Amino acid sequence: MSTQTIATDPRAEIEAGNRRFMEAFGRGDAASVARLYTASAQLLPAHSDFVTGTPAIQRFWQGAMDMGLKEAVLETLEVEAHGEAAHEVGRYALKTAGGQVADAGKYLVVWKQEGGAWKLHRDIWTTSRPAA
Amino acid sequence: MSTQTIATDPRAEIEAGNRRFMEAFGRGDAASVARLYTASAQLLPAHSDFVTGTPAIQRFWQGAMDMGLKEAVLETLEVEAHGEAAHEVGRYALKTAGGQVADAGKYLVVWKQEGGAWKLHRDIWTTSRPAA
Repeated sequence: MSTQTIATDPRAEIEAGNRRFMEAFGRGDAASVARLYTASAQLLPAHSDFVTGTPAIQRFWQGAMDMGLKEAVLETLEVEAHGEAAHEVGRYALKTAGGQVADAGKYLVVWKQEGGAWKLHRDIWTTSRPAA
Repeated sequence: MSTQTIATDPRAEIEAGNRRFMEAFGRGDAASVARLYTASAQLLPAHSDFVTGTPAIQRFWQGAMDMGLKEAVLETLEVEAHGEAAHEVGRYALKTAGGQVADAGKYLVVWKQEGGAWKLHRDIWTTSRPAA
């Protein structure tokens, strides 16, 4: 294990990863969002099968942006790290241009260290809004 | 770390836990389902806030059973264990009395060892069916 690996604080690294996610999402940069995931990452979105790998993840988030989502807000509630993996529980909100909340809910992310950085590896979220 | 901890195979233990889940669900025994979770476990269901702790988890699954769900089918696709925690990715199906699939999708579960057993600790799933 490298000194770098030992020195990092997983929760701080994960919160920094979320800030990068929010920044990239806010400027409509789906390619940079996708690069925050591991090469073998998977999204598990509702109303979809698994979304696997960087190109598919980029397309997924591009599609969300194309639907009018302009801002993602991620709030970390819990991080538990175990060696080179960690899980995070948090709350999210997705907003449209006027700052209106289009959806809000909660998520579970498995993060892994890859290339010296903590990256999202398994990402699943559910709306907390009542069923339509 | 006890010999027992070293000796267990997390994937086999988790698959055994899922079999116990399916058996308890199939006999409508929400109390036994809830006991497969850690004391501080959380469900992250769609259209709901977090469901936290054994009594609330029992009520959640009792509610699903009361809605007519008679069978849960869980299929493990991936287990990665890190010390006393692991994450599992899988597919689920929920069936009604006639064996009809009422819902099918995918899930991410964080498992933890508690009292010498692997238990569900964070449990979230999403339907793979198209939006209504």
